[in-house]
Amino acid sequence: MKNSTGNVPGLALIMVGQGRDSQTYVRKKLGACEEAGIQSKISTLPENCTEDQVLNALSCFHEDPSIHGILVQLPLPQHLDEGKILNSVHLEKDVDGFHPINMGNLAMWGREPLFLPCTPKGCIELLIRSGVEISGKKAVVIGRSNIVGLPMSLLLQRHHAIVSVVHAFTRNPEQITREADIVVAAAGVPNLVRGSWLKPGAVVLDVGTNPVKDPSCEYGHRLIGDVCYEEASRVASAITPVPGGVGPVTVAMLLLNTLESAKRAYNFT
Amino acid sequence: MKNSTGNVPGLALIMVGQGRDSQTYVRKKLGACEEAGIQSKISTLPENCTEDQVLNALSCFHEDPSIHGILVQLPLPQHLDEGKILNSVHLEKDVDGFHPINMGNLAMWGREPLFLPCTPKGCIELLIRSGVEISGKKAVVIGRSNIVGLPMSLLLQRHHAIVSVVHAFTRNPEQITREADIVVAAAGVPNLVRGSWLKPGAVVLDVGTNPVKDPSCEYGHRLIGDVCYEEASRVASAITPVPGGVGPVTVAMLLLNTLESAKRAYNFT
Repeated sequence: MKNSTGNVPGLALIMVGQGRDSQTYVRKKLGACEEAGIQSKISTLPENCTEDQVLNALSCFHEDPSIHGILVQLPLPQHLDEGKILNSVHLEKDVDGFHPINMGNLAMWGREPLFLPCTPKGCIELLIRSGVEISGKKAVVIGRSNIVGLPMSLLLQRHHAIVSVVHAFTRNPEQITREADIVVAAAGVPNLVRGSWLKPGAVVLDVGTNPVKDPSCEYGHRLIGDVCYEEASRVASAITPVPGGVGPVTVAMLLLNTLESAKRAYNFT
Repeated sequence: MKNSTGNVPGLALIMVGQGRDSQTYVRKKLGACEEAGIQSKISTLPENCTEDQVLNALSCFHEDPSIHGILVQLPLPQHLDEGKILNSVHLEKDVDGFHPINMGNLAMWGREPLFLPCTPKGCIELLIRSGVEISGKKAVVIGRSNIVGLPMSLLLQRHHAIVSVVHAFTRNPEQITREADIVVAAAGVPNLVRGSWLKPGAVVLDVGTNPVKDPSCEYGHRLIGDVCYEEASRVASAITPVPGGVGPVTVAMLLLNTLESAKRAYNFT
């Protein structure tokens, strides 16, 4: 693309505050951009900034023709209206796919969202590249966040899985999960899914990234998943580790969404 | 509202072609409006009309301040782009709730759609008024249409049911359905759900309206549901009949959405 059009894709990040996790994620995303030859810009705002400051940062990136994707690093501080801010991201730069129009088009048959949310897109990519059949299979999604659980269940349905969504109000999550051919754990509860929750041969995608204290690690903590890997790996036919599983694929999908957006912008096919 | 503001709610219908079912539904909706004191207007277009003609009809109703809800009677003839037309209905008059923003806001946590699609809204209303607990219960939705199956599954999730969606790619729909406390049948397949598909005591909502030939009936056909009523009624603890079950409640919800929209327009609480 650079050779043909003289342009490279551009990704803008907006980060509010100095949350340790957010910093780590942003660093990874910026590093990945550099490695892939994608230009990146970042706007960092103080923890106590106003909504207008965030919307102004958004406006700048909306008007910047060298930016093809904008990402607001979540979670935002409590005093900011996350819904209002995400709704303000222009559709054609919404590489996170969190705008309600994108989500509605993902949910509805015969519609095409401009962008698929990165983590669910990455999970489907992992399944397909690993030769896991999705169509007609029973899938259980544990958790129903707007960022992962919800779009994951919608995307699995698009691929013709029979999807059940398990959440905090589920009395027997273990029993329901044990029927699944494909399990996506995205509840944010460390080691929630034990070996006994799985049907032998199930395929397990662990989206959990839960920090637990560990003084022996560089930042004083390490990440563990929603799945008890040691137990689950003995029952599952395939399983993603944490860290190093779904996480890097999510970042790769963000780059892919940005590239696709740039191609659209430059009419480059 | 009429006494306080001097205004009544107004509903506009756009009907393309002369499909027998569509005519029946439209007649019922117009009759219900009259009964409830809601003003109604109808724009009928020929089967072979252009997309622009439909969009023009929409524009007129968008500009008409006496109209608070606009409904495009579905299905539209094949040559018209249903997605494009439904996307053109202004959000604040989208009483059918079929716009992707409405659907996205229905799907996402912490968001509120302006309107809930009428059939799913009616089904929830039936459950609540009948004292059926939804939270924590297993619900199976059979079918995944944009009009019923999809919003139904999203709305049941909002009420904290554990939802599974069964569709044409499901190898064992009977087995999955048999685990459900609440079954919503919206597949458009006459008598699909037999008594053996149901857990004893399950609550069954039959959204199917399938015409079958019957020369003894006024129009030469009668409507039957997706559920084999005779068998199912012996197993279920509660079941809606077809006709006369979900259908009239759907029409009532359309009137309610129109009323809510008018209240919003006139700032009347």
